[in-house]
Amino acid sequence: MQYFAAQAESCGLNHSYDSIGNLVIETPGSFNHWVETGSHVDTVPRGGNYDGLAGVVAGLAALQAMVNSNISLHHGLRLRIWRGEESASFGITSIGSRAAFSQLPPSSLAMRCRGKSLRDSMADQHADPTAIENSIPSISANEKEHIAAYIELHIEQGKVLETEQFDIGIVTAIRGSRRSWVTLNGTFDHSGATPMGREYRHDCNLAMAYIHVRLDELIQKQNRNGTDMVQTIGIINSQSERSEKLAIDQNSVSKVSGIAYFSHEVRGCESTEVSTYCDQAESLMLQTAADFGVTAMIETFSDQAGIPALDSQIQQQLAEHCKALGYTHMKLASGAWHDAGTVAQQTRSDGTHIPVGMIFIPCRDGISHSPLEQTSNEQIAKGASLLATSMIHLAVKDLHCLGKQKEKA
Amino acid sequence: MQYFAAQAESCGLNHSYDSIGNLVIETPGSFNHWVETGSHVDTVPRGGNYDGLAGVVAGLAALQAMVNSNISLHHGLRLRIWRGEESASFGITSIGSRAAFSQLPPSSLAMRCRGKSLRDSMADQHADPTAIENSIPSISANEKEHIAAYIELHIEQGKVLETEQFDIGIVTAIRGSRRSWVTLNGTFDHSGATPMGREYRHDCNLAMAYIHVRLDELIQKQNRNGTDMVQTIGIINSQSERSEKLAIDQNSVSKVSGIAYFSHEVRGCESTEVSTYCDQAESLMLQTAADFGVTAMIETFSDQAGIPALDSQIQQQLAEHCKALGYTHMKLASGAWHDAGTVAQQTRSDGTHIPVGMIFIPCRDGISHSPLEQTSNEQIAKGASLLATSMIHLAVKDLHCLGKQKEKA
Repeated sequence: MQYFAAQAESCGLNHSYDSIGNLVIETPGSFNHWVETGSHVDTVPRGGNYDGLAGVVAGLAALQAMVNSNISLHHGLRLRIWRGEESASFGITSIGSRAAFSQLPPSSLAMRCRGKSLRDSMADQHADPTAIENSIPSISANEKEHIAAYIELHIEQGKVLETEQFDIGIVTAIRGSRRSWVTLNGTFDHSGATPMGREYRHDCNLAMAYIHVRLDELIQKQNRNGTDMVQTIGIINSQSERSEKLAIDQNSVSKVSGIAYFSHEVRGCESTEVSTYCDQAESLMLQTAADFGVTAMIETFSDQAGIPALDSQIQQQLAEHCKALGYTHMKLASGAWHDAGTVAQQTRSDGTHIPVGMIFIPCRDGISHSPLEQTSNEQIAKGASLLATSMIHLAVKDLHCLGKQKEKA
Repeated sequence: MQYFAAQAESCGLNHSYDSIGNLVIETPGSFNHWVETGSHVDTVPRGGNYDGLAGVVAGLAALQAMVNSNISLHHGLRLRIWRGEESASFGITSIGSRAAFSQLPPSSLAMRCRGKSLRDSMADQHADPTAIENSIPSISANEKEHIAAYIELHIEQGKVLETEQFDIGIVTAIRGSRRSWVTLNGTFDHSGATPMGREYRHDCNLAMAYIHVRLDELIQKQNRNGTDMVQTIGIINSQSERSEKLAIDQNSVSKVSGIAYFSHEVRGCESTEVSTYCDQAESLMLQTAADFGVTAMIETFSDQAGIPALDSQIQQQLAEHCKALGYTHMKLASGAWHDAGTVAQQTRSDGTHIPVGMIFIPCRDGISHSPLEQTSNEQIAKGASLLATSMIHLAVKDLHCLGKQKEKA
């Protein structure tokens, strides 16, 4: 954060920290409306150098390009460097952006990273935990009214752009996620003395296999019918605390398994679609378990609604700028959550949402949250040029056309 | 062992320990041939009171019934109380019976139970580890020639008899087992940013589910075609040492899984059937893994041949005695390995096998290797009566008709 503050200063940009500790960098001058970008500098343990940081660098480059030019601005340009986007630290995602709009529950202050609470961590870095405690936004209602648009650049964290060989991804929507633990309880039996078949065996591992295959068939069918969701069984029997609690070590090579568990995650942009699908998936899990004489317990532990559509005008303009700049592009949904999602959730006094867009750039093999994360300078440069072009384009014209879509019911 | 030695003495039976530490109890008198029974007193940690012990008690009761009667014996009756039948202690199954026939490799002496080697444990209990070291059987070739028959009683350790409501199970064969570890390696990916489908995901957990379902379908098909095998996936990702070695904790709720492993066990009486099936199963696993862009490594760590057929004349006589005693019975294969299997593997100088039979009695809910293991006194009494009747019947007549089936090629 200090490095970016110093960079901002050295190239004639203003900077300040808000009450949450987010760093705000702006083009100098007095403006009524602001065209914004933002991203984060934090990463996961043993993460890479591009998740978040590429967006901050591109945003700073865009503002820097502006002050170095002779273009006359109608609106100011602003870069927000959000705090704590990754849930890996305090177990909460998008701390900085959610707290900025007073959407972080005060209980979050007790969450800990390496033994230190969020409250103490904020205080240590001259941020104000009472803002979260008292639900005071660092971006006031008035300031929110004057955010004309927000465009965030991020590495894709997937391999669609690389596989399809596009320079740029224009993000259409952001997937939310619903996550559950599913626990199966059956009967431990001697693997030699117990005949095959559901009459004799209440086999958790076998029931689980049929559940996973049927879930896979279910989501394939849904997606063929036009939905766009992804489903992942990330963990089977391997989350250490949970394994200990459920005594998963009762299973052995020569026993029919009496216990099993797995994580079930569904991501989709339309929360009603996700919800409808999860209802069907839960019925399927319970029914399949029952077919094997096994009980299934489903505990949903996280449910974050997605952003069904980012601003269509920004998407259209981004596509036009790509064409002008000679970059190939495709449209795609963001599988991961981003601070842009938090901004897109914000409504203004007239009921309109803040218009939000996102630019994806490819990353090697789709690898992210890993030291192997890699995006070339050329790929970042293309994304930064598109970001700068789009922000400047928005900042030099009258913005009344933007953000006037009514909020969805 | 001391208790049974004292019981034998108090009712006029002879007893002695062989070099391995097995306790041998006999009817008094001088006999040319012996009709034998046997079982074990050891159990697994936190095991029950009936696995092994029921057979010893029934055997002692049979010999006791004989000395209390006025029946004149043609052949002697003998009970062998085998040492260390359970692999849970030293990691080796049937130590006492295998060593008695010099079938235990000398390397076994280094195996440890609670820090103490088998060698030291034997020496501490006045047995002779050099017998194993030098492959000297405690049952000499001559003694083996004169074992006329061997019948072992055991609790079923399954729930077939209870479910089908029979007093007695007449064992037709003993299943052997082949056990392997199967490890899948795929690619860790972001669960939101990576689209569904095999083109994008190399998902170990999903590949594993399809493998397990296809294996289940394969064995069902085989068994419909007349084989009698059981297949069990006992462990998925939950064997602590293996999990640590493979860093299974790299999997997380929000990642496509890049690592998974499971145990695969197949049991069957006919080792060629098991072997043929396992070849098919391995092809299926490798092919299914490849379908998902995942690699599979299969390591077989245990392969014990089964006993395809126990003595048919003994089976027939047991059935006749059941009828005479008014007990219901059914024929079934033993899913678990027993000392009777070791005895059944022994050939005599004329190439014939020692004729072996087994009697199963029901156990509550099929539960075994658990403190909940339970068989009623009435159920044990019926089994013991059948054992005594069968042994005495064999001991009063000329036995030349028995055990003259030639060894299978």
